[in-house]
Amino acid sequence: MNLMLIKCEHIQNNLTKIVGRQLTHLNEVQRLVKGDTVRVGEVNGAIGTGTIISIDKQTAMIEVNLTLRPPAPLPITVILALPRPKMLRRILQTIAAMGVKNVYLVNASRVEKSFWQSPLLAPESIEEQLILGLEQSRDTLLPAVHLRKLFKPFVEDELAGIVGESTAIVAHPISEQRCPIDCQVPITLAIGPEGGFIPFEIEKLVQAGFDPVHLGRRILRVENAVPALLSRLYPA
Amino acid sequence: MNLMLIKCEHIQNNLTKIVGRQLTHLNEVQRLVKGDTVRVGEVNGAIGTGTIISIDKQTAMIEVNLTLRPPAPLPITVILALPRPKMLRRILQTIAAMGVKNVYLVNASRVEKSFWQSPLLAPESIEEQLILGLEQSRDTLLPAVHLRKLFKPFVEDELAGIVGESTAIVAHPISEQRCPIDCQVPITLAIGPEGGFIPFEIEKLVQAGFDPVHLGRRILRVENAVPALLSRLYPA
Repeated sequence: MNLMLIKCEHIQNNLTKIVGRQLTHLNEVQRLVKGDTVRVGEVNGAIGTGTIISIDKQTAMIEVNLTLRPPAPLPITVILALPRPKMLRRILQTIAAMGVKNVYLVNASRVEKSFWQSPLLAPESIEEQLILGLEQSRDTLLPAVHLRKLFKPFVEDELAGIVGESTAIVAHPISEQRCPIDCQVPITLAIGPEGGFIPFEIEKLVQAGFDPVHLGRRILRVENAVPALLSRLYPA
Repeated sequence: MNLMLIKCEHIQNNLTKIVGRQLTHLNEVQRLVKGDTVRVGEVNGAIGTGTIISIDKQTAMIEVNLTLRPPAPLPITVILALPRPKMLRRILQTIAAMGVKNVYLVNASRVEKSFWQSPLLAPESIEEQLILGLEQSRDTLLPAVHLRKLFKPFVEDELAGIVGESTAIVAHPISEQRCPIDCQVPITLAIGPEGGFIPFEIEKLVQAGFDPVHLGRRILRVENAVPALLSRLYPA
């Protein structure tokens, strides 16, 4: 937790009460006492400092002074085949930590149906992972995560509106074209499941204006492909 | 397992016997039968095809035909503060999957002493993770992983020889200089523990010729920083 994120409804007159996971972190990892300061941000708001007014095992009261802007979002929309639940948690954290603000979790032929039953897809569970990612990287802007359980209507009816004027690419190991580097333009990036999109899905994405691009001969797991792609598309 | 890696001592007259984890994968994930083919590589050797001669629950016999070269190694040496055991497994896989061939796991002030007790540091355990990474990305060249439990003698006595003529950089979030992109030169890259190298350690690395570089305002976990750094230094 490099930044403690607080929702605006929990801040009144620059005071906020901390309980639960964040309090445990203040007590047991950071070992803070009255008068100490901690880096604080408001969800979707500014970043600054919190001064500890009181702290014990039940609660901490913190006075906040938030003046800095969060880092600029990446101009990217990520279309991600729903990963297996074990990976989903980490990938949501990664996406949030790296500055993506718009994510579509979509179905694909190689996504196991059971993945859609995961309790990790509950909105409060998704938000929890996103907040952990933002707290790691010191950002405050909560990404929007949309679930699309049907691939074909999503690609045929909705995707053109999402892509808009952006450059649309799909990570596809067997493509001829190298993934671009250091892009200065908005991108819509599609990433398949383990095993990749099937040819029909690639074809539908190409019809929707996506260029298949590769990351070299080595095939990466999705959890490595995501940071590798974001880092080369928008090296900060 | 995008490639099944076999040690050379297990290949005789182009025949190899498969048991254990790899056999389970052939049977339960790939569901292969006699006559099917599978992508095979020899550890530190060539890549090609294996044809299944026989397969049951106990063993499979495979005839291999290995003719392709593995992908070119990245011209990088990674000096990594020993990650916590939970992360070590994944990071070793990532490093192997992305083409790093030379790794030093080193101590640092923010590395907990207990991490050095982990059974995951046993040579056979490290090799297991490296093989999993290579099998994921379809590489065969096993990285060399060196353990250095003392930071100061490592940096003072050994590091200059490791760096040689390469460009030496240390990932350090509060540095002024941006991490380079698309390097065409050999690099020695140092990556600190969660929380970063302490100022003394950065100072010692700077004395050893390392330039501190940042990856932007967002602070990444080590398991994301590794693929993010490798991908921007050497975008394939």
